[in-house]
This record gives sequence, structure tokens and C-alpha cells, in this order.
Amino acid sequence: MTSSSTSSSPLGTVLAGLPGIRDAAEAFYKDLHAHPELGLDEHRTAGRVAERLRHWGYRVTEGIGGTGVVGVLANGEGPTVLFRADMDALPVQEATGLPYASTVTTTGPGGHAQPVMHACGHDMHITCLLGFAALMAEAKDVWQGTVVALFQPSEERGDGADAMLDDGLVDRIPRPDVAFAQHVLPLPAGCVGVRPGPFLSAADNLRITLFGRGAHGSMPQAGIDPVVMAAMCVVRLQTIVSRELAPTTPAALTVGSIVAGTSPNVIPESAVIELNIRTYDDTTRRTVLDAVRRCVDAEAAASGAPKEPLIERLGEFPPTVNDAGVAERLDRAFRAHFGDDAGTIALQTASEDFSKIPDAFGIPFAYWGIGCVDPGTYRTAAGRGTVQQDIPVNHSPAFAPVVQPTLDTGVSALTVAALAWLGGKNT
Amino acid sequence: MTSSSTSSSPLGTVLAGLPGIRDAAEAFYKDLHAHPELGLDEHRTAGRVAERLRHWGYRVTEGIGGTGVVGVLANGEGPTVLFRADMDALPVQEATGLPYASTVTTTGPGGHAQPVMHACGHDMHITCLLGFAALMAEAKDVWQGTVVALFQPSEERGDGADAMLDDGLVDRIPRPDVAFAQHVLPLPAGCVGVRPGPFLSAADNLRITLFGRGAHGSMPQAGIDPVVMAAMCVVRLQTIVSRELAPTTPAALTVGSIVAGTSPNVIPESAVIELNIRTYDDTTRRTVLDAVRRCVDAEAAASGAPKEPLIERLGEFPPTVNDAGVAERLDRAFRAHFGDDAGTIALQTASEDFSKIPDAFGIPFAYWGIGCVDPGTYRTAAGRGTVQQDIPVNHSPAFAPVVQPTLDTGVSALTVAALAWLGGKNT
Amino acid sequence: MTSSSTSSSPLGTVLAGLPGIRDAAEAFYKDLHAHPELGLDEHRTAGRVAERLRHWGYRVTEGIGGTGVVGVLANGEGPTVLFRADMDALPVQEATGLPYASTVTTTGPGGHAQPVMHACGHDMHITCLLGFAALMAEAKDVWQGTVVALFQPSEERGDGADAMLDDGLVDRIPRPDVAFAQHVLPLPAGCVGVRPGPFLSAADNLRITLFGRGAHGSMPQAGIDPVVMAAMCVVRLQTIVSRELAPTTPAALTVGSIVAGTSPNVIPESAVIELNIRTYDDTTRRTVLDAVRRCVDAEAAASGAPKEPLIERLGEFPPTVNDAGVAERLDRAFRAHFGDDAGTIALQTASEDFSKIPDAFGIPFAYWGIGCVDPGTYRTAAGRGTVQQDIPVNHSPAFAPVVQPTLDTGVSALTVAALAWLGGKNT
Amino acid sequence: MTSSSTSSSPLGTVLAGLPGIRDAAEAFYKDLHAHPELGLDEHRTAGRVAERLRHWGYRVTEGIGGTGVVGVLANGEGPTVLFRADMDALPVQEATGLPYASTVTTTGPGGHAQPVMHACGHDMHITCLLGFAALMAEAKDVWQGTVVALFQPSEERGDGADAMLDDGLVDRIPRPDVAFAQHVLPLPAGCVGVRPGPFLSAADNLRITLFGRGAHGSMPQAGIDPVVMAAMCVVRLQTIVSRELAPTTPAALTVGSIVAGTSPNVIPESAVIELNIRTYDDTTRRTVLDAVRRCVDAEAAASGAPKEPLIERLGEFPPTVNDAGVAERLDRAFRAHFGDDAGTIALQTASEDFSKIPDAFGIPFAYWGIGCVDPGTYRTAAGRGTVQQDIPVNHSPAFAPVVQPTLDTGVSALTVAALAWLGGKNT
Repeated sequence: MTSSSTSSSPLGTVLAGLPGIRDAAEAFYKDLHAHPELGLDEHRTAGRVAERLRHWGYRVTEGIGGTGVVGVLANGEGPTVLFRADMDALPVQEATGLPYASTVTTTGPGGHAQPVMHACGHDMHITCLLGFAALMAEAKDVWQGTVVALFQPSEERGDGADAMLDDGLVDRIPRPDVAFAQHVLPLPAGCVGVRPGPFLSAADNLRITLFGRGAHGSMPQAGIDPVVMAAMCVVRLQTIVSRELAPTTPAALTVGSIVAGTSPNVIPESAVIELNIRTYDDTTRRTVLDAVRRCVDAEAAASGAPKEPLIERLGEFPPTVNDAGVAERLDRAFRAHFGDDAGTIALQTASEDFSKIPDAFGIPFAYWGIGCVDPGTYRTAAGRGTVQQDIPVNHSPAFAPVVQPTLDTGVSALTVAALAWLGGKNT
Repeated sequence: MTSSSTSSSPLGTVLAGLPGIRDAAEAFYKDLHAHPELGLDEHRTAGRVAERLRHWGYRVTEGIGGTGVVGVLANGEGPTVLFRADMDALPVQEATGLPYASTVTTTGPGGHAQPVMHACGHDMHITCLLGFAALMAEAKDVWQGTVVALFQPSEERGDGADAMLDDGLVDRIPRPDVAFAQHVLPLPAGCVGVRPGPFLSAADNLRITLFGRGAHGSMPQAGIDPVVMAAMCVVRLQTIVSRELAPTTPAALTVGSIVAGTSPNVIPESAVIELNIRTYDDTTRRTVLDAVRRCVDAEAAASGAPKEPLIERLGEFPPTVNDAGVAERLDRAFRAHFGDDAGTIALQTASEDFSKIPDAFGIPFAYWGIGCVDPGTYRTAAGRGTVQQDIPVNHSPAFAPVVQPTLDTGVSALTVAALAWLGGKNT
Repeated sequence: MTSSSTSSSPLGTVLAGLPGIRDAAEAFYKDLHAHPELGLDEHRTAGRVAERLRHWGYRVTEGIGGTGVVGVLANGEGPTVLFRADMDALPVQEATGLPYASTVTTTGPGGHAQPVMHACGHDMHITCLLGFAALMAEAKDVWQGTVVALFQPSEERGDGADAMLDDGLVDRIPRPDVAFAQHVLPLPAGCVGVRPGPFLSAADNLRITLFGRGAHGSMPQAGIDPVVMAAMCVVRLQTIVSRELAPTTPAALTVGSIVAGTSPNVIPESAVIELNIRTYDDTTRRTVLDAVRRCVDAEAAASGAPKEPLIERLGEFPPTVNDAGVAERLDRAFRAHFGDDAGTIALQTASEDFSKIPDAFGIPFAYWGIGCVDPGTYRTAAGRGTVQQDIPVNHSPAFAPVVQPTLDTGVSALTVAALAWLGGKNT
Repeated sequence: MTSSSTSSSPLGTVLAGLPGIRDAAEAFYKDLHAHPELGLDEHRTAGRVAERLRHWGYRVTEGIGGTGVVGVLANGEGPTVLFRADMDALPVQEATGLPYASTVTTTGPGGHAQPVMHACGHDMHITCLLGFAALMAEAKDVWQGTVVALFQPSEERGDGADAMLDDGLVDRIPRPDVAFAQHVLPLPAGCVGVRPGPFLSAADNLRITLFGRGAHGSMPQAGIDPVVMAAMCVVRLQTIVSRELAPTTPAALTVGSIVAGTSPNVIPESAVIELNIRTYDDTTRRTVLDAVRRCVDAEAAASGAPKEPLIERLGEFPPTVNDAGVAERLDRAFRAHFGDDAGTIALQTASEDFSKIPDAFGIPFAYWGIGCVDPGTYRTAAGRGTVQQDIPVNHSPAFAPVVQPTLDTGVSALTVAALAWLGGKNT
């Protein structure tokens, strides 16, 4: 990581505190990693976060949306900037072999023991945001404005941002002017990447039940075959991406599950398909969702189905579309600070609920990625910004960010972003 | 051909005249073969037919439905029995090498010369019916009732029966009690076969225009792709036979033609498919036609087509379904006369418009087949009643019935049928 | 039921014994119905059958193929005629409300209680064959030859005939000249129907595993989608019936089950389809099985599958194709005895393993159906020979043959068949 | 158009000559527009170009690849920079109503009169390159290096660059260090846009013949249906874009044409589909072409085709992928000169053969677009860089670039590019 910041600039001044908090931050990270909690169950995590924030002088609100925590550091006139970290872990059995690996289990559906692991790096997000919060509190005299540090529960299931908003978030914290979030990605640690416009996809999961009419397999004329109906739907759904979207419009439609019948010689009553849609803007999302409805209705009609397909929403994430102006300003700040380690990141196919928070306030936002893979093991042949496929990626049991320079980079990136908005005001 | 008829029976008495007319009949047949005429253009043929009928004492009406001819021989009290032969030839270039092969051409569409050939055996049908008419006239003292010999134009295009009916046929001839027709088939000459119920299929030809929206091939999102729409229709139409009919219900749906677009990189405005449907009863026919409508409408809807598909009927034939009682009575008469050369024939996939005539009168009918292939060349391994695939079949340029015993069999079969209805009345 | 048999004919003499055994036969039937046993578990049934046969003087072999029983009554010179009844019941919870309804349960897979019911009429088949055996034993002086009464286990699962054959059946009983079996069908009780040639379909059940490559739903390029592969297979398999068989060749191919994936946004590793094929002759059966292999291999290749689909046979039944000569002779005998209650039956889509027995001996056979529905409740509008769809049919929990005239008809039909082969020899 | 260039800079000095040549350039453009010539027939055009180049002191080579012209202006030490314009027109009937509209016809295929029109703006490309050539010649004292002005025939058919290369281009002109080309696009006149990496798609046109076996429509079992085979191919080909490419990889596969059969009731012998593939990089192109081969081979195998499909290439264009470094340097120069009228252009779906020339030399290149639509008629709501759909676009009979500021912008853009490489050397 190169830095053009001089210690005499506000940024340099704030970051000068980093070595002083590094050991504590790393220890905090490892503790979080060893104590993962599932969505809306982040009680220990939230308590430790709140305790730290209060320690550094933040005004803290706990329990927003269950386990959400917000710390506010008002520091005179100037913009209000919100930074968000997500706190929840995943029901994954950790297989990293790390000394601080999780051995936590919780009680899952049906009373079975369920392993828990920070397999998506939210522990790193928390630690970076806390580290940044500490540095900003220590160096209040070189910046002015207000920092809002928001720790959100339950991002993985997509209901944490909603939970905080439903619990009155908008009226319970100062209105921000801009919002930021960062996420660890399988890029070389030390790297930072942002992009204007679409960054993460919207995701929509649908369950579609197709109704036929059962019959003995030897009497197709007495039935309406839902297996053929479902097959034709799967085939027809392929044409949405291939024919209804521009070749340059990124999107994916995957039918991940198809289930019908239990016997080779009985035509079943119905079939169920479950599908996942990834889009990067609301127009495309609407186009695809409408096309799915149109296609399955029509294929059911082609089969002479006794009733229309039932489409149920299993969950959804909005697209994460960075504000172009904010992202470009951020990009310049990152490049100024990180040099060649900053760059434009490729479009990602993951999804997030972060954007619901700035959308609720009606404010612009930017989301960025930081690398978390040991640069020495990252294949040099791959272009920067390209996700490599042979590295344990987020959600894998072997997902293991290198603590450094990931942590320092995350704290620094948050600080760079903060001072790109707050920095110049204090002089 | 074996015969159980004794010369003292009415049948024996009538057929005793056969040797006396054989040479003339064969010559007449070869003359007809050498002078084929297309549908509704059978002027020479009709003239020769009418002349012969008058010669034998029939009351003749000419020009019904253009070139149709009907001869009536009233012979006292008793049933009225109608026999029908079709007269038209086909636009096929004869390749039989026969001494009496056709060299006729006519002026076809666009002023081009068009070859003409009796490639479906209608010349044999005419000759047999005339031979029978002669025998019945010669032996008027052994039977009573009325014989109606009807020579129909334009069977191939399916509009000849309609032409005669539209021209008042029902009011211009005595009302028959029963109607018969026979057709040469690629079975061993000498054989006769009938079956109760379905004999020939209904045929429906449809042209379906599928409307999309044109666009450059690189901009599928700007168009509605009629090529994909047509492909999905072809795929979906397969399920009508596979899923909507009982496994034991015979039917065929063939998309014989698909045409869309002229350039690889332009999405065309529309696509056209043409299809042929073969069914053997009205319920199945209606089921399939309704399913075609339902399927193409739905596939167009699945594509988001700007308007419903246009379905045009290109022509249709009714199913030819023999009256069970008439067919069984005929079957017994055939077996009694022809012995092992008579049998139950398999369902045929060809189509006919003959049945429109008895249907117009509201009377029962039976249709039967006679063989026309040299028995020596007919593979002995094949079961009787099975159409062999390596023999030039009807409509082929090489289609060449052996004159005998085909002609004698056809005359005899008509006589057997006649006397099964008329025979017993004279004693 | 009308009868042309006079009491002075051998048939008349044998059937004169029927009133004398009727009460006992009905009681035997109801007892069997109340004590159903699943395939290869027919110990009580087999014991009662053997006891009766011995009582009437049959030489009895028990335990062939587990629970199979064969009684032989040698009665002088003459043909040997085999009659077969099947003995097993089904795992169905009876819902007929009959006083003699089954309340039997057995221990099923996993130790769960499993209801058992004679829901396919095998109890009637047993009783009829025993009644016939009694009558033939009583009237030995009017016929000569040998009667073989064979009681087969486990027809429903298709392994009972094989079990008897594997247990040396061919060498343990006299070689028959012809074999017969009958089955109750949802036709009016009192009716008997046979047909030459195909009667019951062959059935083949296949499980096909299609191998893809799993991936996250947002990264289709990293996977090979088995859901699309399976859908294309289902679509493609429709074309076997629609395009590869003659329109007049009866056949059905049903994909009764399709299962792949457990999550909407994960491309699974594989998909499984299960299908049932019904054909009526070995050539068609082979054509369809070969086409299934060809289609799924090719669709897997089109998807770029990492390995060929795995096709497993889940079970199979041969076609039941009556010998034409035997069936016609039987038909004449039925019509002579039953008058208008005898007729040609339509092709049935059920399957049987009976034919394996005559096939093992290399002898001809005929299989026929007898009605079992109260004629008063049988819709008069329906043509005879048509299976009505609103009547509880075989395998239904409400399947309840009317005891009479079903039982008398079944006994009579067996006797008519026997004496059509054995009858004339004694005079 | 804004300009930050001062007249004292080399760029300012060169462009100071623009007003002096403007009238002549506009007249030259209108003359070219009124005299369009099809590919490899650009004799008049090439002659006028060569005459002008010689007039300004360029060393001129004519007739390279038929009608290609290259002018070289060597001006001391420094880089050699190649600029390419394409010269051919299209067989389109002009419908612009312009005073200088084309009325030219030529003799087309079959001897028919064929209209000719500059419907793709190549006349503008020529004029701009000549205007630039004039300005550079006039201001030789403010820059140094070598300018190569290359006028290529037959771009539309994709064979002009190959023709020049096949004719020894690489050995007949000085080796350039970098190459440039520009194209008018339906953006507001005055705008200039470039982008690093992919700019234009590769295009591959294929004709695929699928072989079946003909049969009568009523006998599908005797044939192998190429209509179903083609439909399945069309359906299957959709899955290449939907399943085999990353959601973020732009690509299009359009089946623009499908033709099989001439009659509804005859299964034809074969079917032909023609398709167009658009990709933006060689890996994707190869992936798609391989997948097409795999899919159609497999679908033919699924149908049991008698032989493999025949795939013929109807034409192809490489992708046009700008060198990132060259494009970024150019972008900076454009933004410096044109201000807000310069920007990043969206990926275009058109194709070009320009890149073959720099590829033959092994040198980097950049391709850019200039607007040609009257800014007043360009909808203000549309984002810059978005192609509007209601404007007559390239290849339309109504395509009519506004002469100004299109011409000035094109001359200026070439000059900016030239001096970004040549400019700094002379001081």
C-alpha cells in the first residue's frame, strides 16, 4: 500500500493513529471471528460494538431493528457521513484451520445443532469500522462534521436493513448527506476498488408452482402434464436473457430447483420450480420479473393448465448502484491515497441490502470492495479486479481473509472516504 | 382370386360377363392412362365415360360440378346403391416407362408447362366402375333395384365432391340407400380389404403466421423474435400427440414447412409454419385443432407477440369412417367371394372427399381398397394388409398398377358389393 | 348373460354344476377379499388354494417361486391347457365400505404399518379359477385332456412369473399346449372381451440421472446446468411418440418425476427424471428404448455434460400379445356362449407378467377381460368396451367388483375356453 | 464545441487552418455523397482522394487492394501515426431528400439496377481525413514525425482491409507506431467518444444445414424431421447466452433465418438456419462458436440425423478492442480539447474490419465515434452516449449526418489524436 498522504494533511493526521490501535483491532477481529452470531442474534457482537463506541465518545443507540447499533460523533458544522458495517455470520461449518476458527453452534430448524461461521467477512467489516471510529474520535481537531457509524444486523437474509428502518432509523439518527459501506472480496489484500453506477446485482428468488392434472402415466389424455409444463417453462425462461435484454445488459436467470412427481408412471398434479434472478438496475429487474410472469402464464396456458401458476417471492435484494458523482470523487481520493492499489472494480454478482438505508434517507451512496487474499498467493497472471475461481471465496467453509494488510486497508479506506467529505472543512 | 360364386347365383351370372368385356376394359384403361386430366379439367374423360354409360342404357347427367358424370340404371323395385369413382390426375411427370405412359402436359401456374399423370390410379377406378356398369346392364334380369354410377372430378384437391354437391347433386339423382367407393392401394393385386369404422384419416392443412417485431440481430431487446417463437411452437405442437391424445388414438401432426427471415443478422417481422394434421374421428380432430390454436396463441403470448397468430386453413378432408354394419356385411360378401384374398385392411393415412357425398344424403357408406402390385414382386414376408415401403406408391412418378388382376378384381368387388345389397331381391 | 349351450353339450354339462358351487365360491371370495396378502407373502391364500385343489383331486405342487401353487388334473388323452390366476394384493387402504372390506395391515418399509387390499381383483381371479377347477373335476366324464390351474404370486411387482420360472416351473408341470388368463376390468359385469394380437402394453420404468456441474446461480458460466439439461430431455422425449412412431402405433412415454436442486440460486450437480414407457410390441418397445437412450445422450452432449447420463431400469413388463388364432377361436366360443355379452375389447394400457409363463414354454396364449361393474350403474351411453372414467377402477381404494354376475361369468368364461380346446375330444 | 487549445499550442496552430479549408471540405463532402460507389468499386472516390493528397505533398500509393489509397507525409523524426478512413457506400435507395442526395445506380446481381448511397457516413470519414491531411500539411513546422492517411475500400463487406493487406500493405508503407480510425454515430454532432477495451463487437455469420430424411407428413416414422431438429436447435442455441456466458459478458446470438419445407404435409429433407453472433473478445467468440457446433451436432444426434450438420461461415468481423493505454491517452486529449463534448462512449454492437490493419503491423490502436445528429433534434432527455432509437441510424435510407459541426469535429478529433502523439516533439 502506497500513500501520498502526508502526515501534515488531515488524512495523514487521522491515519497517524493507526499503528496505535492496530494490535487491539486485530485482537478484536479474532475474537469476533471466534464468536460468530447469526442474523438478528448478534447480541454479543452488538454489545461489544456499543461498548467500544461509547468508550470513544460516540452517542450510541442500541437495539434498532433488534440488534442494530448506531454511534454518532458530532464534531461541529459540516456534512454528516454515514458508514455501515454488517454484523451477522452464516450457518457454515468452519474449515479454515485458523487458531481463532469458530467452534460455535446454535440451535437450528428442527432443533438440530447448526454450526456458525463468519464466512463472509462481516467480522472484518465491524473491526474496520470500529478502528476508523476510534481514529476519528482521536483526531477530532483536524476535521469537522458528523460521523455516523451504523452496525446492521442480518444482511445475509436481506432483512436487517429493513428491520432497522422499520424500527424508526430515519427519525432516530441525524440525516446523513452521503452513505458508505465496504465489503471484503477475493482480491489481493491491500487493494481497494470502487465503480460508478451498478456494483452489486439485485437478487430475486421466486418459487413457481405449476398446476396440471394428475393421471396414470398410461393415460396422458386424462391428465395435464406438469412435468412437460415445467420443462417448457425452464426452456422458455432461457429466452429472457437471450432475447429480451440487450447483449450489453448484465443479468442472470437460474432455475436452481425443479421438483415434480414421485413415481415414473404417474403424471403428478403439479410441479415446482425455484429460480434466482440477478439484475443491475430497476428497469432490467422489472423487465425480467414481468417476463417471467408472462412466460410461465403462457406456458401454463399452452398446456391447458386448470389454473394460473402461483408465483411466490422467496426473498429479494435491491441492486446496489453507486452514485456516479460520489463514486468518482471517492475513486479520486482512493487513487490519491492508495496509488496503484486503487482501481475500478468489475461488476459483482453478489447482492446486498445496504442501499435500502441511503434510499430511505433519499441520499447518494457508494459501496466499495477491499481485497482480503494474501497477495503472495494471488495469481499474478490474473488481472486486478478479476475474481479468481480457485481461491476460497465468501461463503466457503475455507474463507479466511488475511488479517493484514486487510484490516489496515479497510480502516484507511473508510478514513479516506470520510475525509474526502469532511476533511477540507476544518482548515 | 378364388371364387365361391356359382354361375347359377345372381353374382355368378353377372360376373360371367366379365371375360367378354375384359379386352375392351383394358384398352379403355390404357387410353385413360395415356390421357390424364387434372381436377375439374376432366372433359375428355367425362365425355368418354358418359358415352359408354349411355351406350349401356344408363340415364346420364353430365357436367354436375363442372365435369362430374352420373349414370343411373333403374331396374325395378329395390334398393338404390351408389358407386363412386374419381377421375382426376396429378401434376406429376410420369416415369413408369410403360408403353401407355402419359406424355401430357398442361399449362400450369405462371404459364409454365406442367406434366400430368394418373399417378393415383383414378384411371383404374373409372375403368372398374364402367366395367361393372356394363356387366350390370347386361344382366338386368338377375337383380333388381337401382344402380347409380357416379364419376367425380377433382378428388386430389378435395373440392370435387363439394363441386357436385354445390351443383345440386342431391336433387338431381335418386336418393341412394347406401354408397360405395374403392381405391387401389400398394397391396398385392387380387386382394380386397375393408374395415369397419375409421378407414382413411381426416386431413387438415393449416398455415400459421406468427407475428414478432423486426430488429437488428445485435439488438434482440428491440425486437420480438419470431424465429424463437416459431421454434417454440414447433416444439410445443409435438406435445399434442404425445400428451393430449390417448396412446391408442391414431393421429399425426407434421409441421412440413417453416419459413422466417432472409438474413443471418436481422430479426424478421414474422414467421410462417405450415402443418398437416391427420386424425380418424371428429372428436380427435377437434381436440387437435383446438390444441393447435391454444398452443400457438400461448407461445405467441409467451414471446410477447404484438398480435395473435393468424391461422389459415389451406384445405381439409373429412375422415372416411365406414359404417360398421355396411362394412361387416361387405366383408362377409368379400370373404365369401374372394376367400383368402379378402381381409381386414389396416388403417390408412391417406384422405378422401368421397364421404361428403353419402353424408349429404345422410346415408351409410363403405370404402374399400384393392391391391394393384404384381403379387410376384410383393414381398412374401410382409403381412397382408401391410403397405410395403419399397414399392412405388400412389403419387409416385413410378406408380404403375398391374392391369390384371387389378382390373378384374375391381370390377368383381363392385359387383359383389352391388349384389350383396341388390342380389337377393330378384328371386 | 345369454347362453346357447344346451345341457346336453359338454359345456352345458360342466356348467350345470355352477349353481351347486355358487354359495361356497362367493363365501370363498369374500374371505379372500378380507384377507389380502402382498406379493410373495400369499401364504394363507396359497394354503387355502392348495387345500381346495387337493380336495377336488388335483395333483398339487406348492411353493413354486415362494408361494406359487399349481394343480394338475390329468384326464386322459388330449390337450393340456393352462389357466393362470394371480394372487397378490396391493398396499392400498380399502375404502369400499363393504362388509367384507379388508382391515389388514402389514409391516412396510421403515417398520411402518402398511394397509393391504385386494384392489385389483386378484381375489376374484383366484375364486373363478377355483370354481372352474371344481366344475371340471366334477364333470370329468364329458371332457378329456389335462387341466393345469396355476396360481401365481406377485403379479403387481412383476416378479411373480419370473419367481415361478426361476424355481423350475417348466420342468415341474406338464407342458401345456395353450395358456389362458383373465382379468376383471371396469366393464359391465357379465361381459367378456378378447382381442387378437396386442392386448396389454409392455411397461418399462427408467430412472435417468443427468450429470451437470454445480455453481452459484449467478455464475452459470462456471457450471453446466442440469435443470436445463433435464428440461430439454423432457421436451425432446416428447418427439419419440410424436415423430418416431407411426400414427397408428399405440405407445406412451410419460416422465412422471423430475427432481433437481434444493435452492433457487444454486445450480445443482445433477438432475433425475423417471419415466414410464408403454408399448404393444417388441419392435416398438425397442425403438422407444433406443430413442430414449439416443435423446438423453445427445441432450447431455448438447449441454456439454461431464459424463453420459446414467439409465437405470426400475422394472419392466413384457407386452401381452394374444396369439391371433387362439384369440379368434376363443372369440367364437365366447360369442357362441355369451351372445351379445361377448365382444372385441379395446387395447388396454395396463401391463402383466402372465405372458412370461407361456413364453417360457414356447406356447401360444390368450388373455381376456371380464366386466366387474354393476351393469345398472354402468352408463348406458358408453360404448361397450370403453373404460369409463368415473367408475372406481383397479388400484383405487374404492374398487369393488360386484360379486355377481362377475363370479359366474369368470367361471363360465374359463369353462368355455377349456372346452373350446378340450371339449370335442370326449364324444 | 469548446476548445481549450490556444492558438499558440501546436494543436491550436494546426486547427487555426480549419476555417480556411471549411468551404472546400463541405463541397467535397457533398460531391462524394452525391457520387457513392460500392465496395472495391471506389474508383472515382479513390482518384479524387489521391489527387488531393498529392496536391498537399503526400507521397501517394494508389490501387492497394484494388482501390485503396495511402498518403504518407514524412516530417522528420518522430512517431509514425496511421489514420484510416473507409470509402465504400451501400446498396440503399437514398430517401433523405437532401439537395446532394444520391441518384446513383449500378448494375447489381442478375443485371438489375441497384441503388447506391453513402448510408453509413464513409463520405464524411473521407472528407474529415482529407481535411486533417490538408491542415497537417499546412502546419508542418509545428509538429514532427510521419502521418499516414489510409483510405480503405470495402469495409461493409468486411473484405477491404484484407484486400489491402493481401496486396502487400505492410511492406508498402512505413510501419506505424499507432493507428486510429473514427466513425460517425447517431450521437449529437459535436460530440466525441472513445473507450478503453472493447468498442465494437466481433460478428460471425453462419449458415447451418440440418439433414433429416423426407417422408410423407402422415408417416413421421419413415422420416427424420428436420423441422423439429431445427426448432430444437433454435431453442438450444438460446442457452449459450443464457447459461454458458457470464452474466456480465456481452454477447448476442440471433437466428435470423430458418427455412425448411414447401408443403404442409411433406416432411422435408433438410432445414437451414442462418445465425449471427456478436461477441467482444476472442475467448467469448471461441466459446460461442464452439458451443454452436456442439449444440447443433448434439441436436442432430438427438434426432438421429443421417449426417452431421454442415456449418458454413458466411462472413466474419473481428472484435474492435481499443488498446487501453492508447484510448486513455486519447480520452485525456479529447477531454482537454472538447471539454464536456468528449466522453466515454457505450459499447457498440456494430462491427468493423479496421483492426485487421494495426493487427497486421502488430501495433496498438484506438477507434472512436463522433456524433452526426443535429443537436437540436437530439432528445435532451437521453443520456450522452446513448444511441436513440427514433433517429435514422447508419444504413437507413434516411441517414443524413448534419454537415456541421460534424465535419469540423471529425477534422479536429483527428488533429487532436495526431498531436497527442506527434505534438510535443517539435518544440
